[in-house]
Amino acid sequence: MSKFVFGVDIGGTTVKMGLFDKEGALLDKWEIPSVTANHGERILPDIAASIKAKMEEKGIVLEQVVGIGLGAPGPIDAKGVVYKTANLGWDTVFSVPEAMQKFIDLPVKAGNDANVAALGELWMGGGKGYKDMVMVTLGTGVGGGIIVDGALVSGSMGAGGEIGHIHVEDDEADCCGCGNQGCLEQYASATGVVRLAKKRLAKDDKASVLRDGEISAKAIWDAAKEGDEIAVEVAHQFGQYLGKGLAAISAVVNPEVFVVGGGVSRAGEVLFEYTKPHFMKYAFHGCRNAQFKLATLGNDAGIYGAAKLVIDEE
Amino acid sequence: MSKFVFGVDIGGTTVKMGLFDKEGALLDKWEIPSVTANHGERILPDIAASIKAKMEEKGIVLEQVVGIGLGAPGPIDAKGVVYKTANLGWDTVFSVPEAMQKFIDLPVKAGNDANVAALGELWMGGGKGYKDMVMVTLGTGVGGGIIVDGALVSGSMGAGGEIGHIHVEDDEADCCGCGNQGCLEQYASATGVVRLAKKRLAKDDKASVLRDGEISAKAIWDAAKEGDEIAVEVAHQFGQYLGKGLAAISAVVNPEVFVVGGGVSRAGEVLFEYTKPHFMKYAFHGCRNAQFKLATLGNDAGIYGAAKLVIDEE
Repeated sequence: MSKFVFGVDIGGTTVKMGLFDKEGALLDKWEIPSVTANHGERILPDIAASIKAKMEEKGIVLEQVVGIGLGAPGPIDAKGVVYKTANLGWDTVFSVPEAMQKFIDLPVKAGNDANVAALGELWMGGGKGYKDMVMVTLGTGVGGGIIVDGALVSGSMGAGGEIGHIHVEDDEADCCGCGNQGCLEQYASATGVVRLAKKRLAKDDKASVLRDGEISAKAIWDAAKEGDEIAVEVAHQFGQYLGKGLAAISAVVNPEVFVVGGGVSRAGEVLFEYTKPHFMKYAFHGCRNAQFKLATLGNDAGIYGAAKLVIDEE
Repeated sequence: MSKFVFGVDIGGTTVKMGLFDKEGALLDKWEIPSVTANHGERILPDIAASIKAKMEEKGIVLEQVVGIGLGAPGPIDAKGVVYKTANLGWDTVFSVPEAMQKFIDLPVKAGNDANVAALGELWMGGGKGYKDMVMVTLGTGVGGGIIVDGALVSGSMGAGGEIGHIHVEDDEADCCGCGNQGCLEQYASATGVVRLAKKRLAKDDKASVLRDGEISAKAIWDAAKEGDEIAVEVAHQFGQYLGKGLAAISAVVNPEVFVVGGGVSRAGEVLFEYTKPHFMKYAFHGCRNAQFKLATLGNDAGIYGAAKLVIDEE
């Protein structure tokens, strides 16, 4: 009898859902809206209903389903307890698996979305074949996922892999979204690199293609690839901060590989040209073996990882 | 039939050895010299001979011994492979358990000494009752051990927990022993805090008891406890660097507790008075739950942890 797994990635506006076989083939994927009104009370029943509908559509019975994996924003510990997550309206501390099982009688596992995405990349993406991996997601913010010997490090309060909030700059007047100053996220996220570029452009009148049109992370990396001097300077600043942050991580868990994803990573291997030399400078010699790889699953990393979360528990 | 375990902590001058029962009671401890000549080729056979002699003395037979745990300086991965360690003269890459089993027919596990000490403190020391712990050893250098869900994080090349080499200061002209500049070890080790004090004293002529006699870590902490203004300043500098380093670690693995040991920790709880406020400033809000505890096993942490390494494998 074939066995199936559902991987679910809960976001603030949509819920991404995937049907997988146990070997990691994505058989179907679809989305439903995230209804965050009324403390997000519809989110889990809506997911359960959508899974039931998909099972009926495909003629899958409960006994064929290994379980449901859920990834969600916010701190979620190894047992699936969520410590509030404003993005979904969830404002209490509760066990996601227990809550979900009220709506569907299947094994359920839950984890933080960035951590779960890391597990996805390890299973079927840029980290395939590795056991000790750190996922670095450079998007609106900077997220992370720490994998040690094939297993996620959720942290004691679900805050494992919050690598965007490693302090990398003492001389910073602006605050990070978290309230601290000098967090990696303030420099290496999409908004962070734009902030670095704007500061650099304001410093003098040096010519740059970045002075024309809107400044985006993409525009900066495109310009750096073309050799635009200001963009190259900004890319080095970005690389210095990211290299310093990754070096700190490597002194803690000494990973085999950093897998870099998120919007900013669409710039490609050029990111590593600017990051690796700085990483090598700041990293302890015994940790410099770390490889750098691009993530390959894009927005599907979350559903892959959520599915793997359940398979690992079976 | 009673079961016994041997825990062995191999240092550059002496090998500490302990005989434990499985519940963690230390039944006997003794030392033998580390003979590091000829690439340290005598170290493992000497340990095996000493264990055999102890078994004979106590009337213990092979079947009663769970195994032998070994801690040694230098990078050792989760399988017990050592990647060279100058302190012992071991200048090749080899499996410590395989090498040891040529001399004694018992299960053998090996790990890095700082990591193994962490496991000892988790088992029977300052970290007892916790699962997610970071050991911070403030001695001649700064070492560490990362424990996630009760298990050691050795790292892909045995360099997990090399927290003394987290970069915490951009503005540093002197080199760390590792060759980098601005490593935590340059400020928070016994020699590091003395260096900070000497620099501070050289800055001006302000009165301080530290101007009389030799400056040691102990003298600095004693003076800080007495309210000596320069010592208090130095203690804050120390605390700022250590707090920053521990905050970076907490953003990676989000531990429940930091257990602080090593010579500098003999200063006692006063260390935390100067470290915690800085930790709280630099740490991500979701990681500020971490507790601070003093290590309690002193120099025996290594033999305890080595014994636990084998018990965990049984």
